Amino acid sequence: MTRPILWTSTHTSGTIVHQMAAASGLDIDVRFISLRQGEHKTADYLAINPKGEVAALQLPGAGVTITEIPAMALWLAEAAPASGLLPIDPLGRAKGMEWLAWCHFRMANTFTLAFQAKRLTGGDEAAAAALRATATTRARAALVFAEAQLAKQSNGTILGTTQVSAADIFLAAILRFAGFLAVPTDDLTHLTALGTKVAAVPAIAAAIAREQEIG
Amino acid sequence: MTRPILWTSTHTSGTIVHQMAAASGLDIDVRFISLRQGEHKTADYLAINPKGEVAALQLPGAGVTITEIPAMALWLAEAAPASGLLPIDPLGRAKGMEWLAWCHFRMANTFTLAFQAKRLTGGDEAAAAALRATATTRARAALVFAEAQLAKQSNGTILGTTQVSAADIFLAAILRFAGFLAVPTDDLTHLTALGTKVAAVPAIAAAIAREQEIG
Repeated sequence: MTRPILWTSTHTSGTIVHQMAAASGLDIDVRFISLRQGEHKTADYLAINPKGEVAALQLPGAGVTITEIPAMALWLAEAAPASGLLPIDPLGRAKGMEWLAWCHFRMANTFTLAFQAKRLTGGDEAAAAALRATATTRARAALVFAEAQLAKQSNGTILGTTQVSAADIFLAAILRFAGFLAVPTDDLTHLTALGTKVAAVPAIAAAIAREQEIG
Repeated sequence: MTRPILWTSTHTSGTIVHQMAAASGLDIDVRFISLRQGEHKTADYLAINPKGEVAALQLPGAGVTITEIPAMALWLAEAAPASGLLPIDPLGRAKGMEWLAWCHFRMANTFTLAFQAKRLTGGDEAAAAALRATATTRARAALVFAEAQLAKQSNGTILGTTQVSAADIFLAAILRFAGFLAVPTDDLTHLTALGTKVAAVPAIAAAIAREQEIG
């Protein structure tokens, strides 16, 4: 093993890291595993990532694996500073991390709640529906907040950068997740334009195409 | 305004950032606002932090405010590299950020669920109890995972560093939150020792005393 390996799974939150890795321009070996077949719970995988989740970025040499999207973004950004995944200056980096952490927290606090509603409420359908409704309302509020902040920025990116950053990639993913929850997004024109902009970055377009090909 | 202002509130998640700011050794103006009195929803505060939450780190000069715990930790760590809030090397920094993001996500995914259970399930008491039970089980599982990882490290810190890092401060807070949920923690000896170690750092001890004094 001489280059980093990104362990991920298509059409999951791992897609976000796959796109960041692609945008970094680094030579990374991207390997897809099947959650449906339980490949994230095998002994071999748990030895790499004891959390049993994707994505995970396994580094050569030190035998170290990095997990959690904001942390993988930080590592990729520092390994490829010219990629613009995070700004170089401390303030810009902190603002980039702020949006990454916001997306990460909101993902846990809205989308995950909705997707896992039935499991979270012990199987009761009415309770699950109530939880799903709250989560959907929160997801909409989160998107409206992001839309207002994005509208204030130049260049159509959340940090005002000319390059698409890791924060833009994560925000675009959040917008896609909203579609799964049937959260209305038609009026969120800045976010919609950001989604288009992110998907048009050649390396990211290639990553999207690769996941679609795999299915 | 010539120095950063940390807007926070005692005995909230803002406490975590208060402790990190104290551990940084930086000259920061810490201001406490009352959530009970709605001081986080005033027009003046919303102009500083449109999220209407604590903590928020308002920087002098640029008129910029940083929010989200992992991002404030990153800014503090870069502004005070000798503090050891994050390791200096890229891999260590990424691992530090991994734990910060993990704590942040788990906070949303377990403790917040439990604390907001009734609101999340639309006021139904049985549904809230089911959600609280799931959240409590998850909180315990998260702590057991952290305990196992901590047990493998040297120096009794989560990154194996000699100094207490931002990740250690956040983990110690997670352990305290578990107490509010009545999650058993007596068997988590490494985490308990970490909590003691964090609280014994003189600057952090002073921050704890200050919050207790305010109430």
